[in-house]
Amino acid sequence: MTETDSQLFDKTDRNTVKRLPQRSSYDRELAYQILDEGLICHVGFAIEGQPFVIPTAYGRIGDKIYIHGSPASRMLRSLQGGLPVCLTVTLLDGLVLARSAFHHSMNYRSVVIFGKAEVVSELQEKLIALKAFTEHIVPQRWDEVRSPNPQELQGTLVLALPLNEASVKMRTGDPLDDKEDYNLPAWAGQIPLALTAKTPIRDSQLPLEIATPDYLLSYTRGC
Amino acid sequence: MTETDSQLFDKTDRNTVKRLPQRSSYDRELAYQILDEGLICHVGFAIEGQPFVIPTAYGRIGDKIYIHGSPASRMLRSLQGGLPVCLTVTLLDGLVLARSAFHHSMNYRSVVIFGKAEVVSELQEKLIALKAFTEHIVPQRWDEVRSPNPQELQGTLVLALPLNEASVKMRTGDPLDDKEDYNLPAWAGQIPLALTAKTPIRDSQLPLEIATPDYLLSYTRGC
Repeated sequence: MTETDSQLFDKTDRNTVKRLPQRSSYDRELAYQILDEGLICHVGFAIEGQPFVIPTAYGRIGDKIYIHGSPASRMLRSLQGGLPVCLTVTLLDGLVLARSAFHHSMNYRSVVIFGKAEVVSELQEKLIALKAFTEHIVPQRWDEVRSPNPQELQGTLVLALPLNEASVKMRTGDPLDDKEDYNLPAWAGQIPLALTAKTPIRDSQLPLEIATPDYLLSYTRGC
Repeated sequence: MTETDSQLFDKTDRNTVKRLPQRSSYDRELAYQILDEGLICHVGFAIEGQPFVIPTAYGRIGDKIYIHGSPASRMLRSLQGGLPVCLTVTLLDGLVLARSAFHHSMNYRSVVIFGKAEVVSELQEKLIALKAFTEHIVPQRWDEVRSPNPQELQGTLVLALPLNEASVKMRTGDPLDDKEDYNLPAWAGQIPLALTAKTPIRDSQLPLEIATPDYLLSYTRGC
């Protein structure tokens, strides 16, 4: 497939990666893959110059990221007022062990998104966003559980952040050592890291006759 | 051991957890455990109201968090000017699957730190910080690798963020469902998640006679 301009994020002052630009990308599909693999994002906003960075869950539908929570949340209250936001998702893929302390690094994939969030007030879009949210965490989960009732829908603040201004940064592969250091007797290479799911733990009040569904037994994240 | 005031972070307007305060803590030792288990932090700062959230590695010595990088980094250049910073470390411990979509949640431990970073210019402290940095990622690594030379020391900007104003937020255990939902036939419980190290990958240029050290073969993070 030929890459067209519409598959790339526009480069602006904010989202242009300045350090190590060879590790950056503006490819939408790559950003979407990273966003779909991640489970939490870190949302940044500033109130009178004071930054806050709050971890939260999210979902994606097309070119929008959804976050949600209580209308009493300081973060959501701030963002619904149209405050500029920076939302970052980072996947840690490994430790990079070089022959010198200086060249130690990490392999990672991250997406940094800039923009302003909008309140999702239309109930149907809200419901679709909440479904995306649940299915993002555990695919196939939505159909098994009780859907939000009108009170829950009303009592949940959902915000949408458009995916217009974003960038990907990533590092893969071996360490890059100084030429003369390749003769040192130090071990060098990578320790791959992955977020791994262990055996599901049944709720203490779950009746014995309810078996653990296959989609939970086979739950994995990434590759 | 009796808990004294000095083992707690002071509560201020910024670091007081407002949402679900029963999940918060101001215990230093707990914050240090989370910081020592984490590998990356998300650093937030704002330039003219525009927030930036950047993932980076870090180290801790006592009541200071160290971050480092190139003096050309926008983040470090901004922070060394005394801009307010918010540094957050999040460990994701599991997915919490409730009987209703609404009560789905995650188990996690996070530390949010507020303050201003200071440049570490004294060479001895800089070296100690870089050692803490390497040992934080892989304990026992520092002694195996080449130490920073004077050029590398000069060419690395190290910032220290004091651990004075911070808070911990965490969730553990089963989902909390509405009373009437406990009768639903949906599976409920937790999927525990952990960052797992896989078999080390040797650098493609590593001589065969260099064996993988035990501290890498047995590398784990957390419990």
